[in-house]
Amino acid sequence: MDYERIFSDAISAVKAEGRYRVFADIVRRRGEFPRADRFGAGDDGRPLGDNARPVTVWCSNDYLGMGQHETVLRAMHEALDHCGAGAGGTRNIAGTNHYHVMLEQELADLHGKEAALLFTSGYISNEATLSTLARLLPGCIVFSDQFNHASMIQGVRQSGAEKHIFRHNDLEHLEDLLAAADPARPKLVAFESVYSMDGDIAPIGAICDLAQKYGAMTYLDEVHAVGLYGPRGGGIADRDGVMHRLDVIEGTLGKAFGVMGGYIAASQALVDVVRSYASGFIFTTALAPVLAAGALASVRHLKNSGIERQKHQKQAALLKQKLADAGLPVMPSESHIVPLMVGDPVMTKHVTDYLLDEFAIYVQPINYPTVPRGTERLRLTPGPMHSEAMMDDLVSALGIIWERLKLRRAA
Amino acid sequence: MDYERIFSDAISAVKAEGRYRVFADIVRRRGEFPRADRFGAGDDGRPLGDNARPVTVWCSNDYLGMGQHETVLRAMHEALDHCGAGAGGTRNIAGTNHYHVMLEQELADLHGKEAALLFTSGYISNEATLSTLARLLPGCIVFSDQFNHASMIQGVRQSGAEKHIFRHNDLEHLEDLLAAADPARPKLVAFESVYSMDGDIAPIGAICDLAQKYGAMTYLDEVHAVGLYGPRGGGIADRDGVMHRLDVIEGTLGKAFGVMGGYIAASQALVDVVRSYASGFIFTTALAPVLAAGALASVRHLKNSGIERQKHQKQAALLKQKLADAGLPVMPSESHIVPLMVGDPVMTKHVTDYLLDEFAIYVQPINYPTVPRGTERLRLTPGPMHSEAMMDDLVSALGIIWERLKLRRAA
Repeated sequence: MDYERIFSDAISAVKAEGRYRVFADIVRRRGEFPRADRFGAGDDGRPLGDNARPVTVWCSNDYLGMGQHETVLRAMHEALDHCGAGAGGTRNIAGTNHYHVMLEQELADLHGKEAALLFTSGYISNEATLSTLARLLPGCIVFSDQFNHASMIQGVRQSGAEKHIFRHNDLEHLEDLLAAADPARPKLVAFESVYSMDGDIAPIGAICDLAQKYGAMTYLDEVHAVGLYGPRGGGIADRDGVMHRLDVIEGTLGKAFGVMGGYIAASQALVDVVRSYASGFIFTTALAPVLAAGALASVRHLKNSGIERQKHQKQAALLKQKLADAGLPVMPSESHIVPLMVGDPVMTKHVTDYLLDEFAIYVQPINYPTVPRGTERLRLTPGPMHSEAMMDDLVSALGIIWERLKLRRAA
Repeated sequence: MDYERIFSDAISAVKAEGRYRVFADIVRRRGEFPRADRFGAGDDGRPLGDNARPVTVWCSNDYLGMGQHETVLRAMHEALDHCGAGAGGTRNIAGTNHYHVMLEQELADLHGKEAALLFTSGYISNEATLSTLARLLPGCIVFSDQFNHASMIQGVRQSGAEKHIFRHNDLEHLEDLLAAADPARPKLVAFESVYSMDGDIAPIGAICDLAQKYGAMTYLDEVHAVGLYGPRGGGIADRDGVMHRLDVIEGTLGKAFGVMGGYIAASQALVDVVRSYASGFIFTTALAPVLAAGALASVRHLKNSGIERQKHQKQAALLKQKLADAGLPVMPSESHIVPLMVGDPVMTKHVTDYLLDEFAIYVQPINYPTVPRGTERLRLTPGPMHSEAMMDDLVSALGIIWERLKLRRAA
């Protein structure tokens, strides 16, 4: 059996669709973000600094630049000095560190919940929690938003629970599905607050109303909102004053908080059951203490400082306006995410290649399976550190490329 | 529906079996490992240093103490200073960093493979790779060792592939199953080198012989062996000179290498297909550059230094001898892992509670689902930093507790 051939063919299929992914090899410059150094293909294994070219990053999820914040980095240096590099084991076997305990307390408090639980990533926190909850509730039916993240879909699939998909943010459809289900069976409504590829926002309170009416639990993924919305950075549910109505809030430490890792916040009993039953939590080395220490500092900072959030929203609004003024097809977005529709994988790649090679601007093409085929796009993430001059450079470069490729302009 | 009640009942069931897990809240002291500071229950949220009591750790998977090695920590401090905390995105979207590229090159070289791919954990590397490979090979049959890790089981389950479990390390049974399968179908044999709870080692070469005879691919989990065996720390397959016969070698950066993260090393095509198709790789924030930098330094160090490995083996042999001399039921183990059978979850917890409270020795009880019910045990991991005096303290404490609880002695 020629296994290599099968794998090569699978790669050829991706290439034929124009959606083969080439990773941009960059190193962000601490203190100068969104500036970074980019390495070319064939630079594998070269030390840092050799042969690198400067670029401006426009697609990072380190939304507020907390990954280079002095408070965060100082906490990480201190943790390295205090207790070393890795956790050395699973949470249960030698891997729990006091930084984990303090961070879980902080996150529980952030979301107004009794407890929180750390995971190595947001992906695994969704997968492990959803699969465990839906499996432990006998006969559970999961109601899942059509645009939920891959990790949520994976978690529900693993649970083996019956699943109903409701049309994206469609309350009427969700209610139809809830009303049609057996009232005696446990139910779980799983959705996100900010949908990261379109930038739209779920009607959390109204979804909670429906869940309450039909006796369903609620599971909210806030990974693109924690740190960014609400008076203390608790996310959209914090902004909307509805955190207490959600049974589980899931978040990440790897986007606005600038570090790495995921978590859930919920009741003591729910957290304990995930802690005790979830394979993806039990059987994995704990988050490195250095990451927990950095995240702790970041969460604490953003609880008490709103300035980064204000600047962030201002920048997003400004960039949307500049793109619209230039006649570029910026998609309607209620959030900080600024998507620009192209609608074709090959063209999207051309745009980003030109941006990188001619204008030293790094934006990654977004294609299937991250977004549906035919909706390939650029996804821009302006932050407090992007200057207005950088925005003007970006919009001007896009204008030139749009012209050159004869791409569709805004209606 | 009283969801809280269902979760509380699930927790009560775990407690009734005596296998409810209480995490020891510790902070290891850099430079003094295996010494650590332990926090008591109710210390949640207290800052480091308050109210902590010293303990000696005997159950860490930071087998060589690389988590506190100067070279590793220096590299991590430098990376923090150079590029900040987190990666800021998925590998595809702004998250690839030159540290990742260099580390993947280093790991490919370590295992003599064309390429390597990083994951956020060993768990997700197994889950993502096995599920993707077995799914992409049409009609694939997976042959899985009975004692494979939860993450491998999860990966195979997710693939939906037909699975046959062969008795642990049983070549005859594996051959029976391979011979009975349709020769035309793709096959994958998945196994580990060092089984972490028993400490026994797979006959890798002989398994490769069978795989070759029946046209199967081979997938080897070396997480408890990388850094520890072989002339350059490539694992048991390195020691046995059979790395080239394995299609995939999976390893971790969170045990002997002392940091955090997982990886696979394989052919260019195989790595590319996992990179391009695996949900658990694509849709997750990349490993923090600080971790990649630390792991890179650690892998490079252990490639060139055998002294840690020699000391490690010597310490394991010494502890096994001391336990046997004291008549304690040390299980036969061919590796550095030293399991001590108790055979009951409640008794195991008593042993470890006494060790911690009376002797300031930290060993975590190992119970179901990590090991089969009725084989609950202690699992000791002696390392180069454990002194002979520490060993004598441990053996003496165990002798006293064994007497007090009237536990079974060695035959």
